[in-house]
Parts: sequence; structure tokens; C-alpha cells
Amino acid sequence: MRKLYSYFRSSAAYRVRIALAFKGLDYQTVPVHLLRDGGEQHAPAYRDKNPAGLVPALEEAGQALTQSLAIIEYLEETYPLPALLPSDALDRARVRALAQTIACDIHPLNNLRVLAYLRDELALDQSQRDAWYRHWTEQGLAVVERLLADDARTGLCCHGDTPTMADCCLAPQMFNAQRFHCRLDHLPTVRRIYAHCTTLPAFQAAAPENQPDAE
Amino acid sequence: MRKLYSYFRSSAAYRVRIALAFKGLDYQTVPVHLLRDGGEQHAPAYRDKNPAGLVPALEEAGQALTQSLAIIEYLEETYPLPALLPSDALDRARVRALAQTIACDIHPLNNLRVLAYLRDELALDQSQRDAWYRHWTEQGLAVVERLLADDARTGLCCHGDTPTMADCCLAPQMFNAQRFHCRLDHLPTVRRIYAHCTTLPAFQAAAPENQPDAE
Repeated sequence: MRKLYSYFRSSAAYRVRIALAFKGLDYQTVPVHLLRDGGEQHAPAYRDKNPAGLVPALEEAGQALTQSLAIIEYLEETYPLPALLPSDALDRARVRALAQTIACDIHPLNNLRVLAYLRDELALDQSQRDAWYRHWTEQGLAVVERLLADDARTGLCCHGDTPTMADCCLAPQMFNAQRFHCRLDHLPTVRRIYAHCTTLPAFQAAAPENQPDAE
Repeated sequence: MRKLYSYFRSSAAYRVRIALAFKGLDYQTVPVHLLRDGGEQHAPAYRDKNPAGLVPALEEAGQALTQSLAIIEYLEETYPLPALLPSDALDRARVRALAQTIACDIHPLNNLRVLAYLRDELALDQSQRDAWYRHWTEQGLAVVERLLADDARTGLCCHGDTPTMADCCLAPQMFNAQRFHCRLDHLPTVRRIYAHCTTLPAFQAAAPENQPDAE
């Protein structure tokens, strides 16, 4: 049985959970608690699977796959239907760019290890750390809003009316944005698409509160 | 003619330049000076092409493509040979994970806009900003080192003996690491592969010092 090393609130793990659920792929969740015992992701046994000490990792065909977007591309190539990428190359480029605007330009700046560095190495207080978090989230999602609002290919979802890799990234990022009380009023299209995604079974199955390790 | 909006020292633009050169694709460089006039990437005319205000953007088939890895995937799909991804799905997942370990876990933390925030919003001094830069680079490249050193699929390049998307990311990151005087002694495999890449014509053509906007 395929194993997903996951933490219920990890945004990157959440992306992969959506993809697995959307494609109807069974898996066993192996919880990796990011806060317990100094972070279970740093334990040597887990680092053997994922040297980065980050979740998720997907054990598949005897190998531990890492990096959420690389895992989703693998799932797309190996289990093509239902598809998470459109068929046209320019459309695929658009969907990947939307996904990477979140996965490269927003999420890495607000990851747990970065917030820990701000607190421990730079001695920033909670309000400075919150301002940092909101700055990158609000600015990055404004870019996503413009990419979505200005393009006729946007539908009920980020690209057309069915979920793609972009929605796999958008929903977890919006979950985080709400959790950290980010401003969202400048994001009508993003909010509309997120609201739609939350009605879909795959997104519900993947949601943090429905994970076995949810607190 | 295809246009690449580029800045000679931009690590993300450098990745795309390698891919274009490796595939033998002609393009016109449109320089976007990241430091002049408060940053030409913020000019409204450029933001119309790339709302993120980041380089690169590739104008192709009448569309402005953004996000370096999405652009490289597009080039790979549209101009498959010579290939920048292996043919096996698990191998492709490995190459993409290596690329994303750099593009998601290292580079976004050390981008110009982030360093500017550290300086302007958090009033960190030069030594604190340098420590930040080195921390994420040295730690991130140590992860890359382990992924490379522990895997028999590593060859002259990150995956086998010819360049892949992973090498397109590794070479610019190493260029940056040297420029910012990062520790590299813990990275024998990374250094060996980088040294090899710098001998290849595509990497030489794409190097910052060989760009029309080099200073």
C-alpha cells in the first residue's frame, strides 16, 4: 500500500492529498508531527526518506518521492485520469505557473522552518512574524488574483471548470491565509474558486480537519 | 522571434537561458534591470506581462509565460529533443524533486524582494542579511548533496551524464552561492557536477557574464 508521510496542517501535504483523492488513489497516512519532540520530520529515520526534513513524502514503487509538485506530476503521468493538467502545452504552462506562483513565491516564505528562524535567530516578535506572513501571502495571492481575473480560461476552477494542479495549491494556501487572518477582500476570484473547491469531495477528503492526525 | 525578459544575474532567468540554449532555441533577450529606477520589473508595462513583477517571462506564441520551471516544462513538451527530463516516471520525479529543492526551498528565500524586506522592513544589517542568505543556501544545498550522493542514478550531471532540469537549477544556484561566499566544502558531489556543467556550451552561453546586459 502506498504511504503518504503527512501532517494534517501542512500545506504541501494537503496539495498531494487533494491529488490522490481526486484521482481515487488509495494510500495510508503516516503522520509526521511537525511540532512534537522538536519535529518528527527531523528524525533520522524520516530524513532517510526525505533528506530535506519536510513533508510530504510519498512511498511509491519502493521509492520515497519528495516535493509536492514533483509528486503530483508523477501521479499525473502514472494515473492520467481524471487529469490535473489540461492537454494543450500553453494551457499546461499557465496551470503550472499558477501552481508555482503559490509553491515558489508564497509558501516557502511562510514555512514553519522560516517562521522559526525569524523567531529564534532574528528574535522577531509575534506581530513582526505575523506581518511577514501576511505580507507574502497577501501580495502573492494578489498576483494569483490578477492571473485568474484577467484570463478567459479561468472557470469555476483556476483553469476551466474542473480542478487542476493550480487548485491543488490554491485551496491549501487559502486555508492557511484564513488561519493567519490575512486580508482577502482584494481577492474576489480567488475566494470564489476556493469556495467552489471546498464543495468538491476530493478537497473535502484532503482537508486538514478530516485527517487521522487532526487535532 | 521568441523574447526572453531576463536579467543577467537572475537565477530563475539563468535556468531558462540554459534550457533554451541546450535545446538550440533562438530568442531575443529583453533586459529587465532589477535595480535601476526602483526595479524595471515593477513597471506597469512589464507587470502586464508578468503580474508577479519577477523575471523571467518568455513571450512565445503570443503569450507571456512565467515561472521558470513552468517555462522549462513547456519547452520540454514543445521541443522534446534534446531532453531535459528522463523518460521513466520515477526518474522524472527524482529530477523534478531536485529542481524543486532548489527552486522552492532555497531560491525564494534569497530573492531580491526578500532581501529588500529584511533590510527595509526589518532593519537587518548586512551581516544578518548575509547570514540569512548563507543559512538557506548552505542548508538547502546540503540536502541536494545528499540526494545526489546517495543515489546511483547520479552521473556526470545530477541524473545521468547529460543535463536535466535539475542541472538547469543547480548551476545558477551555485553561481549565487559563490557570489555570496557561501560554504561549499560540504558539497563534493554538487561541486563536481557544477564544474562539469560549466564546461558545456549551453551553460556557457547562458552564464551571466555572457549576457547582453552583463555589467
